[in-house]
Amino acid sequence: MAGKNLLIVHGGGPTAVLNASLYGAVARARECPEIDHVYGAIGGTEAIFTGNFVDLKTVPEEKLRLLLQTPGSAIGSSRFHLEPEDYERMPALFEEKNIGYVLLTGGNGSMDTCGKIFKACGERGIRVGGIPKTMDNDLAVTDHSPGFGSAARYAAATVREIGADVRSLPIHIVLVEVMGRNAGWIAASSALARQNPDDAPHLIYTPEVPFDEQEFLADVKALFDRLGGVVVVVSEGLVDKEGKNVVPPLFTIGRSTYFDDVSTYLRNLIVRELGVKVRNEKPGLCGRASIAFQSPVDRDEARLAGEKAVEAVVAGETGFMVGFRRLDGPEYAIETMLVPVEQVMLDEKKMPRSYLNEKGNDVTQEFLDWARPLIGGELTEFVHFN
Amino acid sequence: MAGKNLLIVHGGGPTAVLNASLYGAVARARECPEIDHVYGAIGGTEAIFTGNFVDLKTVPEEKLRLLLQTPGSAIGSSRFHLEPEDYERMPALFEEKNIGYVLLTGGNGSMDTCGKIFKACGERGIRVGGIPKTMDNDLAVTDHSPGFGSAARYAAATVREIGADVRSLPIHIVLVEVMGRNAGWIAASSALARQNPDDAPHLIYTPEVPFDEQEFLADVKALFDRLGGVVVVVSEGLVDKEGKNVVPPLFTIGRSTYFDDVSTYLRNLIVRELGVKVRNEKPGLCGRASIAFQSPVDRDEARLAGEKAVEAVVAGETGFMVGFRRLDGPEYAIETMLVPVEQVMLDEKKMPRSYLNEKGNDVTQEFLDWARPLIGGELTEFVHFN
Repeated sequence: MAGKNLLIVHGGGPTAVLNASLYGAVARARECPEIDHVYGAIGGTEAIFTGNFVDLKTVPEEKLRLLLQTPGSAIGSSRFHLEPEDYERMPALFEEKNIGYVLLTGGNGSMDTCGKIFKACGERGIRVGGIPKTMDNDLAVTDHSPGFGSAARYAAATVREIGADVRSLPIHIVLVEVMGRNAGWIAASSALARQNPDDAPHLIYTPEVPFDEQEFLADVKALFDRLGGVVVVVSEGLVDKEGKNVVPPLFTIGRSTYFDDVSTYLRNLIVRELGVKVRNEKPGLCGRASIAFQSPVDRDEARLAGEKAVEAVVAGETGFMVGFRRLDGPEYAIETMLVPVEQVMLDEKKMPRSYLNEKGNDVTQEFLDWARPLIGGELTEFVHFN
Repeated sequence: MAGKNLLIVHGGGPTAVLNASLYGAVARARECPEIDHVYGAIGGTEAIFTGNFVDLKTVPEEKLRLLLQTPGSAIGSSRFHLEPEDYERMPALFEEKNIGYVLLTGGNGSMDTCGKIFKACGERGIRVGGIPKTMDNDLAVTDHSPGFGSAARYAAATVREIGADVRSLPIHIVLVEVMGRNAGWIAASSALARQNPDDAPHLIYTPEVPFDEQEFLADVKALFDRLGGVVVVVSEGLVDKEGKNVVPPLFTIGRSTYFDDVSTYLRNLIVRELGVKVRNEKPGLCGRASIAFQSPVDRDEARLAGEKAVEAVVAGETGFMVGFRRLDGPEYAIETMLVPVEQVMLDEKKMPRSYLNEKGNDVTQEFLDWARPLIGGELTEFVHFN
């Protein structure tokens, strides 16, 4: 008896391990007699309508394994917006291609899409599942999401390196802007950079705590006076106590308003108010695309999530997202679970307040203990004599 | 008979392999019976006057070897400006500490200092040498300088990673700003990122070629229309055909004028003129502090430069900078040479025009052939199906 085909669709911005989930799903699917072709949707959900699929069933293993070390999405992705009538068209399109299994890899937006595809296809026997993916770590229910551990490792390793540079020539304040529009998980993870007290990062600001410019300037000045070189990590999306973007609008074109980067805005603020040298750095996309700083734990978990999603749909499950549950015990360990996808649709998980210190300009030991295993091993050890 | 002491002084901004030169110098000096103490000047030239030295003679080898994997300067550095009377005071200060050998590691500014110390001390039998160090690769006479190969590897590897990200979700133009105020060596090296035609970087702009905004916009638009995702690498110091900074002044405080980053300025220009999505990234200090992207060739050569400088002063040489001469032949190989330090003092080496294409928005094969060996091996191979 011929099997059904599997379709894998990526959604939203990529991570350093999105392709590792693809590898896990494809490798597992190739072992399943229930699955015939293993299709990748080229360029995201749009391919459902155009039929632009690549068959990954017969790709040589040697080539497929390169997925584990390739950032981005090797089958493309999209931010294509779907209308209710698009979902209604899907069951017939899937049936036409003999697709019995659909897996969506993505964050909140993609899990919303996943849930809607599930609703549209549930009664037609097409099984639909989600594979978590977000560098921002803002998916609900799961302990953490694939993509985050690598983004966290990048932030920590990079800030340790910048810290070594600034310590050698302590003449300026360096602002490092990291991704995280609504949640500060990545900025917080930069705290794992520290080898010793007074190591960078010296201050960390996240969207979870209202940003106060006067307190910020006072904190920066006190550290600059004591250390000479100060490294400050800021999430891209800082807001004030009214919940407003701390960066004022720069210009408007049509109905779009543009803003300076928060690190640029704060650089100018420090220069004007404190009159000291400031640099602003923004690694931006590097932070979600770095293979050199890929966390091996993250990569392995991303692959596992892909494998488990395939196993689940083959076993008859549908309407779920694979999640991670952390196990108790002195050693880090997780198990996977299937979370009903409606529990994660568009629900943004922020950092709990207990992960941030009282002043809101650093993390707590509780956060460090939670985050450390996810970056997958120690960072490079540095030495200094000054 | 007791030997003389060696003093090693770092100047200017650090690189990913500055400490490798320190390792080379210290390791070689510890083997020389002519050398007694091996002092590191803590915090650069200022230590000559304060006597703030660390003795590296007896540091355990295991700890010393961490220098090879530590960015920044493990003994600190400075941009301390020296006056003529400071140089006049030096011979007596050196004699007081029994210092017979002085080595300066640095770029143009530090080689200027090195030459002036040589002039001040030459007749007192104190031998003075320079160890090249600059990520910018703008030191004259030498084929290239330690620090550059790692900065080049960082630029190439990072742009390959960003390219994979942008290819997956080709919805925007990404501007990547790299260091290089007056010379485009680092921006040019990003071209080593390419695995295939149409791979990132799609455009490269350097300070050597006058920047024309209208041509820039036309080039970006044509590529965006064809590819959807475009990666543009820009040197931080672009100038127009009058030699003026392309970025207009942002604000002035006292006698200092502040400018936006060139990537921020160009982002706003593209948004206003082309109305498409743009991201601007600026890894900044990461590009000179990354150990993950340290070039092994660069690290080994940095170490060699430190060793050779020690051997030279012990052998009676003075007033030199160690340089590299590239040997003919199919395999990459260099030999060291001693360059009279006055030949390199404050002389900034720009890219030859033959290394840049006629339009001035990309490099030539001649440049790629020259640069490729310096990044120390192939970059991570990526795969894609889209």
